[in-house]
Amino acid sequence: MSVLVVGSIALDDVKTPKEARTNLLGGSASYAAVSASFFSPVQLVGIVGHDFPQEHVDLFEKRQIDLAGLQRAEGPNFRWSGEYMDNMNNRETLSIALNVFEDFTPDLPDSYKQADYVLLGNIAPSLQLHVLNQLESASLTIADTMDLWIDIARAELDELVKKVDVLILNDGEAAEYTGESNAVVAGKKILAMGPKYVVVKKGEHGALLFGEDEFFTCGAFPLEEVVDPTGAGDTFAGGFTGYLASLGKSEPSVNDLRKAVMWGTVMASFNVEHFSADGISHLDKSRIDERAELFRRMCAVE
Amino acid sequence: MSVLVVGSIALDDVKTPKEARTNLLGGSASYAAVSASFFSPVQLVGIVGHDFPQEHVDLFEKRQIDLAGLQRAEGPNFRWSGEYMDNMNNRETLSIALNVFEDFTPDLPDSYKQADYVLLGNIAPSLQLHVLNQLESASLTIADTMDLWIDIARAELDELVKKVDVLILNDGEAAEYTGESNAVVAGKKILAMGPKYVVVKKGEHGALLFGEDEFFTCGAFPLEEVVDPTGAGDTFAGGFTGYLASLGKSEPSVNDLRKAVMWGTVMASFNVEHFSADGISHLDKSRIDERAELFRRMCAVE
Repeated sequence: MSVLVVGSIALDDVKTPKEARTNLLGGSASYAAVSASFFSPVQLVGIVGHDFPQEHVDLFEKRQIDLAGLQRAEGPNFRWSGEYMDNMNNRETLSIALNVFEDFTPDLPDSYKQADYVLLGNIAPSLQLHVLNQLESASLTIADTMDLWIDIARAELDELVKKVDVLILNDGEAAEYTGESNAVVAGKKILAMGPKYVVVKKGEHGALLFGEDEFFTCGAFPLEEVVDPTGAGDTFAGGFTGYLASLGKSEPSVNDLRKAVMWGTVMASFNVEHFSADGISHLDKSRIDERAELFRRMCAVE
Repeated sequence: MSVLVVGSIALDDVKTPKEARTNLLGGSASYAAVSASFFSPVQLVGIVGHDFPQEHVDLFEKRQIDLAGLQRAEGPNFRWSGEYMDNMNNRETLSIALNVFEDFTPDLPDSYKQADYVLLGNIAPSLQLHVLNQLESASLTIADTMDLWIDIARAELDELVKKVDVLILNDGEAAEYTGESNAVVAGKKILAMGPKYVVVKKGEHGALLFGEDEFFTCGAFPLEEVVDPTGAGDTFAGGFTGYLASLGKSEPSVNDLRKAVMWGTVMASFNVEHFSADGISHLDKSRIDERAELFRRMCAVE
């Protein structure tokens, strides 16, 4: 089954303690779409400006991503600039220029409306809801979010959380959203708000999956160096959704969800090894499968 | 096979954001010995003062712990006082009174010298080395440590690390010991110093096991509330060692070590649910087995 991915498509300037890079491919939809494309056909919804480099469009096409929903506008592209401090665990946003994204309305091409698996990447909850409202019969809807929307768009986020099947967020966001610093309590509180499943990502400490009578704890793939964490969460969500869609089920099982957390983890581990989406854009499925098998063995007890 | 446990036996005053308790049973050997006793016969080496309450000795006896190595001195017992801040992740030591512990030399009774499994609980590395030097033919030696010894007794700690089979420490200590904030790099660095295995504990985020060509990542048992984290690491080490000894092997396999991490995790989860050792002292094996099975299912992917 195919995956509909909506989110931002950005040009990023990223500074880490070791290096600074400018004009990189970024944005939640970019990472998620490329990541999902290794598992399932992907339909992309997003907007780019006149200055969006053709090489990034080429990447989407190389990954056979359906671009019927890619809007091209006259103005300059959405831009984000950020800096990572210390051991990559703290990030500061230096600047945001919404540009063409300011007037973005994610209207779906007709060919997208019957999407089975839908990943609402990290954008304003109002836009995520707009996509939800155009869907005719999705099997599974998955939303990612971030602290910004908890701060400035909580009412819309609450509405979204009620309607999606899976909410993905990180531990800091779960704490902020619920007022609970204990990740187990926070995850259960969000679950009670409506989703069938909640995934709480913990970066280098892995991820937790919550469902009704379901709790799964999964470590992270061990990495000795993180080059650029940008997009790790989006890449996780893309791998998670792409894997589930690849199963072709109208309703994935709890065990499918657990495996999806592991595939998302593996995809995110590739992503943070390089700047931008470079860690995932040149992968082939055999390298992914190889790392996934290694990771499976790292987590297994006989 | 039996487990020899050496460490401190303390009387603790503990303050958490919710409650303060005084005169509690504490100390690395107390937690470790009680925890290990659910899996294997335990031989205890430690020292208590004239004011050490009989009820705690009764607990050791109830757990059928061999007290031939328990020294009783005239002076007052070793005392520790600490306070937990915020969400239990930060601890401050308010006071330490070594008292009878100041002159403690862990001489082994003859009946202990052929111990197969030896847990060198958290005490000065020089004392841990003194125990090591009295052993005749241990199958597996396991040492726990803490930041204090990294600060003030690094040379002795280095010597100990060279000689033991397994070193257990937490992520903050691993970072301090190696100067590496990345837990994967830190774990490998310590492994290169001599032990066959290194366990890096990460509290609510679980634990990592390092060995030659071996990496295992294990989550924590999910708890909605932590009442008192004191002794969690010692309880982990006790469960870890007790389980391994219960297998009766002269050399446990990598998979045995993985399971030991899980049993240690389960024991620690009981411990932090109550003050002092109350969370583990009244357990029975069926409750432990039940939680272990639940935890196994929380970590498993079919």
